[in-house]
Amino acid sequence: MRDAAGVSQAISELKALLGARVETGAAVRAAHANTLTWIETQPPDAVVWPVTTDEVAAVVGIAARYRVPVIPFGAGTSLEGHVNAPFGGLSVDLSRMARILSVSASDMDCTVEAGVKRQMLNAHLRDAGLFFAVDPGAADATLGGMAATRASGTNAMRYGTMRDNVISLKAVMANGTVVTTGARARKSAAGFDLTRLLIGSEGTLGIITELTLKLAPIPERVLVAACPLGSVTGACAATMAANASGLALARVELLDALQVRAVNVHSRLALPEAPYLFVEIAGGVAATEEQLAQFREIALANGALSFDWAADEVARRALWRARHDAFWSVRTMWPGKTVLVSDVAVPVSALAQCVDETVADIAACGLVAPIVGHVGDGNFHVIPVFDAGDSGEVTRVRGMLDRLVGRALALQGTCTGEHGVGQGKADYLVQELGQPALDAMRAIKGALDPLGIFNPGKILSSTKV
Amino acid sequence: MRDAAGVSQAISELKALLGARVETGAAVRAAHANTLTWIETQPPDAVVWPVTTDEVAAVVGIAARYRVPVIPFGAGTSLEGHVNAPFGGLSVDLSRMARILSVSASDMDCTVEAGVKRQMLNAHLRDAGLFFAVDPGAADATLGGMAATRASGTNAMRYGTMRDNVISLKAVMANGTVVTTGARARKSAAGFDLTRLLIGSEGTLGIITELTLKLAPIPERVLVAACPLGSVTGACAATMAANASGLALARVELLDALQVRAVNVHSRLALPEAPYLFVEIAGGVAATEEQLAQFREIALANGALSFDWAADEVARRALWRARHDAFWSVRTMWPGKTVLVSDVAVPVSALAQCVDETVADIAACGLVAPIVGHVGDGNFHVIPVFDAGDSGEVTRVRGMLDRLVGRALALQGTCTGEHGVGQGKADYLVQELGQPALDAMRAIKGALDPLGIFNPGKILSSTKV
Repeated sequence: MRDAAGVSQAISELKALLGARVETGAAVRAAHANTLTWIETQPPDAVVWPVTTDEVAAVVGIAARYRVPVIPFGAGTSLEGHVNAPFGGLSVDLSRMARILSVSASDMDCTVEAGVKRQMLNAHLRDAGLFFAVDPGAADATLGGMAATRASGTNAMRYGTMRDNVISLKAVMANGTVVTTGARARKSAAGFDLTRLLIGSEGTLGIITELTLKLAPIPERVLVAACPLGSVTGACAATMAANASGLALARVELLDALQVRAVNVHSRLALPEAPYLFVEIAGGVAATEEQLAQFREIALANGALSFDWAADEVARRALWRARHDAFWSVRTMWPGKTVLVSDVAVPVSALAQCVDETVADIAACGLVAPIVGHVGDGNFHVIPVFDAGDSGEVTRVRGMLDRLVGRALALQGTCTGEHGVGQGKADYLVQELGQPALDAMRAIKGALDPLGIFNPGKILSSTKV
Repeated sequence: MRDAAGVSQAISELKALLGARVETGAAVRAAHANTLTWIETQPPDAVVWPVTTDEVAAVVGIAARYRVPVIPFGAGTSLEGHVNAPFGGLSVDLSRMARILSVSASDMDCTVEAGVKRQMLNAHLRDAGLFFAVDPGAADATLGGMAATRASGTNAMRYGTMRDNVISLKAVMANGTVVTTGARARKSAAGFDLTRLLIGSEGTLGIITELTLKLAPIPERVLVAACPLGSVTGACAATMAANASGLALARVELLDALQVRAVNVHSRLALPEAPYLFVEIAGGVAATEEQLAQFREIALANGALSFDWAADEVARRALWRARHDAFWSVRTMWPGKTVLVSDVAVPVSALAQCVDETVADIAACGLVAPIVGHVGDGNFHVIPVFDAGDSGEVTRVRGMLDRLVGRALALQGTCTGEHGVGQGKADYLVQELGQPALDAMRAIKGALDPLGIFNPGKILSSTKV
């Protein structure tokens, strides 16, 4: 599959184009492959750092000439092997395309290059009273990577995912042309939705180089609440009741009892080791008070053992600390272990069953795997902690995660709520969507990338190792 | 282009399949072509009424065998010639696929067949305290048609458009397979977004036969407000200030002075003939009071001449009557005239300029054309009233609408905010999106419908007459 001569010719041409912004050292290449999870590290042949859309197009032109794979790279924080190079090729690192091109406070939108990171953007926007709402666990992902993987996070319930927060995109296509997917109007019915087609396409259909994003006003007031519940079922019932009441909760997060124990150890807290809900309410003063009162009533009616809330920033941070520290606490509590994060999503009415059965399965196969959920939209993370050198344990983890996906699909859910497909979930797509949908995706892929140079081995074909 | 023998063979096979649910009478055929606007009526060769997805697939199979165009038909309320048959073929009328298949109050979703109409669905949902939020001007469109044209309406500001309110779709593809685009989870990162690709594809990529929709809780309380402003600029400034304050206004509608005059005549009101804002606020009791007070302050600061509001349903209806009666009032005030509705959308910051210049243009060419806008998202309708037999006037209307699109595009807007492309806006797409985007759309079209049988002459090629 790999054409060494072609790769080496392509690299010479790239050096002529980009000079020192082409690197082939082993360390740089390895750092541009999957490094965060147990999916094997598959480095590219070279890494290039374009600084303009035209340079990206030129890189794609060279890659096409020599049939060399092209893999876009943002911050490298994806979890399913998206940035791996199973067939070698070029990692196109967009981190030097990091300009904020424009911000319109009146229109509450901005246009940024793909390499701009979320925290940098939000720091830039703060004085205008605005923020970009999508907040994935990879706290400092690039906006381009977030769009490419259809990222979401704790804010998705109120603000939506990347699908909902991108107005239009600029992308380099496999034929070297630069597509602009839409105007700057907030809504449009003008033709096929290329914006949404590229969002979540994980670099297999185009390389996103610019994004026009919806922004939101920083809320006048934010309240947070936290409460332990008698059961996951109670936590989910409270969430559904809040949804049905039209409470516009900004965030609803669930920690299972094991995750709460880890947080207690890590953060020296003494929370009851029960399923915990963390809720954020944002809006005007009267609206937030009203919603807090309504949510308190709902939580108590659904078995809340206690109910704490806070309004000022310091107290809010203290109350939400358990949620913020969740991932770190797992590393602290089980030092030296490998920690993975997988995700599924189900209809909210099936969430309690899905979580409870998963907790039981984890226990039954003698594993450790706390659970953290964006319970408002039925999405949750399972975080297995294991010894990567213990092949028996690794096999049990694989089996548990495989059953997790099967359980989610049986409950009309999805194999990935927000992490994407990459290599890790490619085997599940046909089960989730059926062969005709996969055929349609393959037809689109074939039409837009007939040479198959854009991130091969992801989404549509399994190259998981 | 038309193969009469093929058409007649296809019709025989269809009659064998569907019996009396195939019709070829001239009146039925004419009623299944564009009838609502000045785009020429181009009837299909036959109309078929399938009642299951499998029947739709069988119809597509026959059509493919004889290379006969297939044009899906819902309620026939689209405005840009979407249902016309410029090359003849089969109108696939989905109105007998009108079952509500399931409603989940816990998940706030439902699954319906494509022919279910919006008002029927909302009547069905009322007792569960839920509603489907997208509310196009064609008040009783089918859900399938609304998805196919990416419809929106006055609720889009708060609830989004069809793009945002469909969880997944079932669609028959041109190869006769039935695609299910997603699971029932609220969010997913599993593969290309076929849901969004089909939404707005206007029957050119697939025939939508089922939809799983997001529902919203009926708000606890609804307040409405109405205020005349000194200028369109003031109305737009008030809207932008409300957006920036994070007021979750449910609806913000603008009527220009001419439209207010028409309403006064039609509904025997005595509103000041100035640009008017109509606003709806929904939520809890305290939240709505708070938002009303904030919006009132914003409106007065931006030149509101007065400010009325109402809470109980009768008073609300009276206050919003001018907005509800807008389209009918135009027909009443200018009886015997042809009334058209066109739409564009621009970034909100450019809306005042776009509306003011359009009003001036209308006056300068001696036309009558009131304006109604979904000002919250920069979308507005221009409603020319003219004598269709007066070719000079028709030419002036065409010129005015052409300049309207040019103006919207120059302001980074779109040629259609919510009506879709069909035949009427096809000529503008390349100007709005550029050739590479059109090429990508054509490649997708070619991949998914290589025979070109799905709604030919729409979106991607101009067959406007």
